[in-house]
Amino acid sequence: MARRRRDRTEQSTTVLPDSARSRTYRHLRHPFPPLEIFSEDEVANVHETAMAVLEELGLKILLPEARRMLSSNGAIVDESSNMVRIGRDMVEDALQAAPRSIRLRAANADRELLFEPGALLFSAGAGCPNVTDLERGRRPGSLKDFEEAIKLQQSFDVIHKFSPSAEPQDVPANIRHYAMIRAQLLNGDKSMFVYSRGRGQVEESFELIRLGLDLSEDDFVDGVWAATIVNTNSPRQIDVAMAEGIIDFARAGQLCVMTPFCLAGAMAPITVAGALVLQHAEALGCIVLSQLARRGAPVAYGGFASNVDMKSGAPAFGTPEQIRMSLGSGQLARHVGLPWRSSAASAANVADMQAAGETHMSLWGALMANATVVLHAAGWLEGGLTFGYEKFINDIEALQTIAELCRPVEAEGESLAWEAIKEVEPGGHFFAAEQTMKRYRDEFYPPFVADLRNHGTWLEAGGRTSTERALEIWKRVLDAHRRPQYANAAEDRIAGYIAERVASGGSPPAGT
Amino acid sequence: MARRRRDRTEQSTTVLPDSARSRTYRHLRHPFPPLEIFSEDEVANVHETAMAVLEELGLKILLPEARRMLSSNGAIVDESSNMVRIGRDMVEDALQAAPRSIRLRAANADRELLFEPGALLFSAGAGCPNVTDLERGRRPGSLKDFEEAIKLQQSFDVIHKFSPSAEPQDVPANIRHYAMIRAQLLNGDKSMFVYSRGRGQVEESFELIRLGLDLSEDDFVDGVWAATIVNTNSPRQIDVAMAEGIIDFARAGQLCVMTPFCLAGAMAPITVAGALVLQHAEALGCIVLSQLARRGAPVAYGGFASNVDMKSGAPAFGTPEQIRMSLGSGQLARHVGLPWRSSAASAANVADMQAAGETHMSLWGALMANATVVLHAAGWLEGGLTFGYEKFINDIEALQTIAELCRPVEAEGESLAWEAIKEVEPGGHFFAAEQTMKRYRDEFYPPFVADLRNHGTWLEAGGRTSTERALEIWKRVLDAHRRPQYANAAEDRIAGYIAERVASGGSPPAGT
Repeated sequence: MARRRRDRTEQSTTVLPDSARSRTYRHLRHPFPPLEIFSEDEVANVHETAMAVLEELGLKILLPEARRMLSSNGAIVDESSNMVRIGRDMVEDALQAAPRSIRLRAANADRELLFEPGALLFSAGAGCPNVTDLERGRRPGSLKDFEEAIKLQQSFDVIHKFSPSAEPQDVPANIRHYAMIRAQLLNGDKSMFVYSRGRGQVEESFELIRLGLDLSEDDFVDGVWAATIVNTNSPRQIDVAMAEGIIDFARAGQLCVMTPFCLAGAMAPITVAGALVLQHAEALGCIVLSQLARRGAPVAYGGFASNVDMKSGAPAFGTPEQIRMSLGSGQLARHVGLPWRSSAASAANVADMQAAGETHMSLWGALMANATVVLHAAGWLEGGLTFGYEKFINDIEALQTIAELCRPVEAEGESLAWEAIKEVEPGGHFFAAEQTMKRYRDEFYPPFVADLRNHGTWLEAGGRTSTERALEIWKRVLDAHRRPQYANAAEDRIAGYIAERVASGGSPPAGT
Repeated sequence: MARRRRDRTEQSTTVLPDSARSRTYRHLRHPFPPLEIFSEDEVANVHETAMAVLEELGLKILLPEARRMLSSNGAIVDESSNMVRIGRDMVEDALQAAPRSIRLRAANADRELLFEPGALLFSAGAGCPNVTDLERGRRPGSLKDFEEAIKLQQSFDVIHKFSPSAEPQDVPANIRHYAMIRAQLLNGDKSMFVYSRGRGQVEESFELIRLGLDLSEDDFVDGVWAATIVNTNSPRQIDVAMAEGIIDFARAGQLCVMTPFCLAGAMAPITVAGALVLQHAEALGCIVLSQLARRGAPVAYGGFASNVDMKSGAPAFGTPEQIRMSLGSGQLARHVGLPWRSSAASAANVADMQAAGETHMSLWGALMANATVVLHAAGWLEGGLTFGYEKFINDIEALQTIAELCRPVEAEGESLAWEAIKEVEPGGHFFAAEQTMKRYRDEFYPPFVADLRNHGTWLEAGGRTSTERALEIWKRVLDAHRRPQYANAAEDRIAGYIAERVASGGSPPAGT
């Protein structure tokens, strides 16, 4: 353990435009109290209706093992329909067992996170089959893209944990999980992500993390080294891989984020309150299963509700409905006392004003809902079908702007500027005031994408949009990226295991 | 009066993508409580420090008439330096006199607005010497551009009052004000804007409004038919035209928004609290002058503070500092009990992700600060040097998204969707659910700029960015624009006056 600990406290590889200020982005707490869309009675109503959904209508759970676990703990199971009705006593028991605060471990001790109400974490756009950038165009994701996305995530402190941004489609599905864990281990030192794609892949991914970080089996199970997202098949269905993921992550003591993906009007009722009733029932049903698999297993409540465009059925993001559902989800998460995930998201096809608008709207929704972690917060395009490099860079500026708000505001003594106001004559300027000279280096957030030059100078310099400027930025960031110092040793530790597993044919994803 | 009233209740000319829902945007109230950056003690500290600035350091006021008015009411004036020191008793007296709620009149009675704490008004980007659009490029503003911008503002209910978006530089400065008032009278029916560019222009502008709307002199003085913005020459200086504007608007009973433009690090101290001390002192000083000119005159507190980029001195917007200063300004405005203006703004040179990001950040800052009116909320580029047509259209989507949040959320009965959840089988969809069929037309905000089609369809249709799509939208909106029905009569009523004034050489702007 001593050796690994030494590795983990090495300097991080972070490359940022202003490293002096960046340090404050690693451990953020919400600066503002949450906004509410429901009264206390209304929150209780939504909760109670969700309880009735679980108790009277039930969930369809496709994994027999899960049905057996639920049945033997009091749920009413109809094996002919796979329907499972879960009583509110079971929900209450699970909510009592689930931890309120979860320590997310990471290769770098300074990257460890408290995942708990009040904390504010961001992660990058995830689950994208495609990637796009201005130089190479839109294409199916490759392992190179996956690695580059991890490097980009590693390079900004405001991204707190890793996400699988780009699906490495050039790696066969049965050995892809090795490549995805390896890329995270070797290119960064943040809290890691593991897909729930079947029991074999999950267990092997855990083993790779254990080997890579040089943890004993006890060390691994004692800490939360990996997180996954489980999406229900809304409405009211949990498929085999997802149920296995819930059970396996719980048993291994790893974090499982229970996220119904409730698009109002499509997979969920058309009303904000109705979609949240369904989300709440599904999330709580999953949490019950996890707590039966291992009491006290780390779980998060997941809220990722938005609406569809009723003309086309297409998912929409950054809408008033998504903002409201985020605020409502926050109220429901606080009602059950759990840390929770929300999303910033965009349906735009390209990194344009629509993309920025949708992302900012949903980002503020998640912020004002006091989400514990905001997923898809950088780089998401096309409702998650594509990870955009230039959008990632532009979104980072938004996240850093929010992160700056987490610092307290000075409002006494010298910060009130009495002397400076006295010093500067009427109609003069403060550029050379003593207070300005003392503070100018650090006082303001230094934008790294925004171009503040006047129009003439900007035009002479090429007249590039922020999307075009972001191309150079991500290339520079990738060039500056360095492996963490522990990476070489980790590489050695996992090489044999991966070679052996690949030679044995790997492990198929669930459902194949 | 009866004749005019009949005109004013005619159908408006509004052309919107979804007129059924647009009606709710005309009279918005803040949906959320404000956020705070200061404790109560800290707000009091900022206020007290500003009082000390007024009392001990003073303001430099360049208009002798203003100095006389202040002096004869207790201020200590040094005529050699034009410095005026204003006691806190004078401030307190002015704050007692200033109205808390102001009824903004308009040609169309349904466009009248309550300008008071709790109300949420938006107006378009103002004061831009240049305009830009994708078809005609960036150019000095012309009267045609000014008129088009008024037509665009008229066409969206979420723009509540008129702004002078484009400066009509092709009209000589001594007769420009006639053209600007005429364009507002003939192309719309919203609350109007008058520039404070010298006594003669202001009086003539009022006369034109009176004639155009067929108001008696008593009618005009009894209502607030015009608003202006007064920017101090921060720090601590009020020039001749601005002081005249304050006095003339007060005497005419028209709204004057007192807005120091405090860019921290340049015209204001580098700290958030220090910039707000200066802003507060200057705004309150202006309010004192207005209340001496006419006790009870309609005024608004103005907060438009942001920071500059300390590398270049260039103004920056949408920054963490601007958000904080907006939140702090809201606290100060509530401390003195007045309605107030804030700003959404952008320094971007083009309608790109930076432009959207800055505008969304500052828009949310203003929203969460509970600003009474958010200026520059649509179309501002280059920190106000250019009005952008495509940016205007994209910004309207943001404003409409916020406006939708002002409607209450349903959270009982059928909206909880029990029957719908029961009706749809697990893994099914809600597209055909009874509740969906009943509600789908009106449930969601229908975006009019966002393109939600999938990437392939979007690409086949031309693969245009939201900025490119906005070109077609504003052209369609301008095509659909119709004069309000009262416009022809107004045109007749003002024609003679304008011809006579133009023949007499017009009226020079202040300072020429």
